[in-house]
Amino acid sequence: MEFKDLIRARRSIREFDHKAVPMDVLRLIVADSTMAPNARNAQPWAFSIVANRDLIRRLSDESKKNILWDMDENPSSPYKTYRAILEDAGFNVFYNAPCVVFISGSKAVRSIFVDCALAGAYFMLSAADRGLGTCWVDLGSAIRDKGLRGELGLPDDHVIVAAIAVGYPASVPAPPPRSDPRILRVVE
Amino acid sequence: MEFKDLIRARRSIREFDHKAVPMDVLRLIVADSTMAPNARNAQPWAFSIVANRDLIRRLSDESKKNILWDMDENPSSPYKTYRAILEDAGFNVFYNAPCVVFISGSKAVRSIFVDCALAGAYFMLSAADRGLGTCWVDLGSAIRDKGLRGELGLPDDHVIVAAIAVGYPASVPAPPPRSDPRILRVVE
Repeated sequence: MEFKDLIRARRSIREFDHKAVPMDVLRLIVADSTMAPNARNAQPWAFSIVANRDLIRRLSDESKKNILWDMDENPSSPYKTYRAILEDAGFNVFYNAPCVVFISGSKAVRSIFVDCALAGAYFMLSAADRGLGTCWVDLGSAIRDKGLRGELGLPDDHVIVAAIAVGYPASVPAPPPRSDPRILRVVE
Repeated sequence: MEFKDLIRARRSIREFDHKAVPMDVLRLIVADSTMAPNARNAQPWAFSIVANRDLIRRLSDESKKNILWDMDENPSSPYKTYRAILEDAGFNVFYNAPCVVFISGSKAVRSIFVDCALAGAYFMLSAADRGLGTCWVDLGSAIRDKGLRGELGLPDDHVIVAAIAVGYPASVPAPPPRSDPRILRVVE
């Protein structure tokens, strides 16, 4: 698709078809993601691809548990408006997507959040270009259990920057409202 | 351009033509940037557009000075390989681009680095789609002087996430080597 159309067609998808995402398509999307610019061409990103519903459910439960725990520790948590859904045992933070891809990297890399976010932007656009829907799930990154981190292949020093649900969209929502760009200053 | 071609055609550009970038084109690129996904659709990003060579030079000098200062405070600074160029008074961190765009947002927003990086990815792709070159200049964000921050219109609570040099490319380098994607685990 033309880039200018793609950025307007891409939506965050929260209702997925049951159809599995072919692994060769996921690998092409991951390869596209690594075309993103990044600090000093260090390419510090790494990918964990989970297309197993049992593991996705356990990752969802782990992340919900940890965010609720953090919320009790920190009453000003930005997540506090999500308490009810996080306490709902039936709620899957990944919206029952057939696949979730985690983008992670070493905490020792100063630019790791920015580098992995750039790869994530490319990931979501490449998926949309191939007819897939994605949602960057902010509530899905709090994976701390050693066993589950091991199932994702995460080295000890890795932080999960992005947890992205992927699947064929069951429905595509209307675009949410966009504010006019906030331009603080133009100096000519 | 088709997205799949665009992500391979986009290069970080460090040699710019003298031609100015039309302000209406810059505003279109900024508008494209705000199509990026972001946490809770808060759209926390803000833009400062600088197309004035005197101000760009002063911003370059300010950022160089602060990074050198930080380096003296912190001998393990990741910037230490850049000491020689940072000490070169003739070196402009923005590569003498005719325009620099700063993307900033409130430090109070937990996801500000990720949200602004996603907008930055869209910015760089949209610019490339319009025949422009960009370079995300990691060495150009250390703007602390109150007067200069004021010239950028930055509110006190804003952090600069991206400083992006923009202009028509004088030359387009060959693609740098890309490693095979690092896939930690595939679970089916």
